[in-house]
Amino acid sequence: MAEARSDGTRFDVVGIGNAIVDVLAHAEEAALAALGLAKGAMTLIDAREAETLYARMGPAIECSGGSAANTIAGIASLGGSTAFIGKVRDDQLGRVFRHDIRALGVHFETPAATSGPATARCLVFITPDAQRTLETYLGAAVELGREDVDPALIGAAKVTYLEGYLWDPPRAKEAFLAACEVAHGEGRKVALSLSDPFCVDRHRAEFRELVAGHVDILFANEQEIMALYEVASFDAALQAVRGKVEIAALTRSAKGSVLLRDNEVHVIDATPVARVVDTTGAGDLYAAGFLYGLTHGRNLAACGRLGSLCAAEVIGHLGARPERPLAELCAPLL
Amino acid sequence: MAEARSDGTRFDVVGIGNAIVDVLAHAEEAALAALGLAKGAMTLIDAREAETLYARMGPAIECSGGSAANTIAGIASLGGSTAFIGKVRDDQLGRVFRHDIRALGVHFETPAATSGPATARCLVFITPDAQRTLETYLGAAVELGREDVDPALIGAAKVTYLEGYLWDPPRAKEAFLAACEVAHGEGRKVALSLSDPFCVDRHRAEFRELVAGHVDILFANEQEIMALYEVASFDAALQAVRGKVEIAALTRSAKGSVLLRDNEVHVIDATPVARVVDTTGAGDLYAAGFLYGLTHGRNLAACGRLGSLCAAEVIGHLGARPERPLAELCAPLL
Repeated sequence: MAEARSDGTRFDVVGIGNAIVDVLAHAEEAALAALGLAKGAMTLIDAREAETLYARMGPAIECSGGSAANTIAGIASLGGSTAFIGKVRDDQLGRVFRHDIRALGVHFETPAATSGPATARCLVFITPDAQRTLETYLGAAVELGREDVDPALIGAAKVTYLEGYLWDPPRAKEAFLAACEVAHGEGRKVALSLSDPFCVDRHRAEFRELVAGHVDILFANEQEIMALYEVASFDAALQAVRGKVEIAALTRSAKGSVLLRDNEVHVIDATPVARVVDTTGAGDLYAAGFLYGLTHGRNLAACGRLGSLCAAEVIGHLGARPERPLAELCAPLL
Repeated sequence: MAEARSDGTRFDVVGIGNAIVDVLAHAEEAALAALGLAKGAMTLIDAREAETLYARMGPAIECSGGSAANTIAGIASLGGSTAFIGKVRDDQLGRVFRHDIRALGVHFETPAATSGPATARCLVFITPDAQRTLETYLGAAVELGREDVDPALIGAAKVTYLEGYLWDPPRAKEAFLAACEVAHGEGRKVALSLSDPFCVDRHRAEFRELVAGHVDILFANEQEIMALYEVASFDAALQAVRGKVEIAALTRSAKGSVLLRDNEVHVIDATPVARVVDTTGAGDLYAAGFLYGLTHGRNLAACGRLGSLCAAEVIGHLGARPERPLAELCAPLL
């Protein structure tokens, strides 16, 4: 563990999320339709569906993923001090996940499950327009529970970052709320990403309560924030979220992002990308840049610019984690 | 299995090789030196060294590899009819290997080992100059033996393609020689890739005998062919190999390739590449393009141009298998 700082923290950010290995393959639009997949969304599938779908998937590559885990990897790549809490099984893919996150210097000590389902996998279908369609088998991730949340770790981080997807596995919700309680008890901040519009649909009432009652920093894209408040325009969603959280960071793909804090508003352009290859991880890496900036005393606009630059890196190649050290790429902004 | 053709074959090429999953990570030159790795070479490591080295490796991505398997994947991607023989374990990485090769339509029925070491892994360190350094743990691949070579399969393929690396695991050598015997008994061709100059050093005497006595089509890069004949120049190696095999395809990276058949000689330029990202698989994919051309009645120069184009695709991205369908990319040459 890192040395304690004057405010008693050892970490900039601790993330809690589903520990997932991504399986990425290119797919034509027609193939998605033939497989009956909901393009652009994250859908939960069971072990049997995962088998069937994998058998019909093209040749693939494997890389560590998971929404909050990608964000934590990004903050670590920027030079931030981070920890992660998530559940893998003690199998080959679990070891891959553990290796990749630790290789970035992330503190990751959640014990692997020694029985039960295999490490979670997300089958990622990338269409020629660089959009990704996610089919997730949660596997061992459903085993994450309150006992995996070390209060000392939460208390030692400036920000506890949670992914909305954690609302899907049954016991993670408790872990999530326990973490919020500890964080606020220690005077730390809680950040949440809404993850996916369908995820918002599944848990709308609870998410609204959560946002209003427990969340300090909210990340959402346009579709997610509109789904949360059931409104038909981005501006209506913006009005709805004002005052509900301390900071809202709302992303809009190529249209950039909008940042809100009290009466402060910033509209940040997206960083141009020569060729968008795979949008997997765009939101996760935006959050990484933003949270790195925030925990390093940058102003809100600078945080947004860092988020945009990190998102631009990850959509320029296959996979949801940075290919090159973000500290190097972002040096002009740091 | 594919339909039998008028010559009694069902496959263009059957490959026999080590069934390996690649683990790819970027590494600085200094890191290679600190780890004591022989840059650019393929080194065999044991299970413990694989653990130690993996622990010191950066975040990685996993993709199916194996020299002959990459070649077979490339031929399949060009639209060729192919089969593969190689040994995995019945573990997660073994299933990844099987999935990826079958997803390309390759016939792959070698039973997985149900006990013993795990599926083979190759730790690939990619330096900023796009060179790759390979550290291979053979694992279950050492279990490949004569009993895995189905004579009907060898007899059903126009060409049996073998990787020199097969000389490393103890029992594969027998399988290799058995396959040569069956192929020639059925009037088919045997192709060999020398794989690596260090591999040639390990098995020089046997390789010379093999080339002179059993091989019809030889693939070698400049370093390998010079190592085979222990000569100091490419031209001396070229003179040495003349007359030893029916066809020699000698590759020279950016300098292109030289093709020999009796008195026929062709010097083929390399296909220019905008940005070389990772040279892993360059030789494997050259062989793929060449063998696809040869088994589809193209002249020698056309085979060489196909090889160059396929090699150019694979060095433009991470990983040793084509990212986009080669049949599309090579359409102007097909």
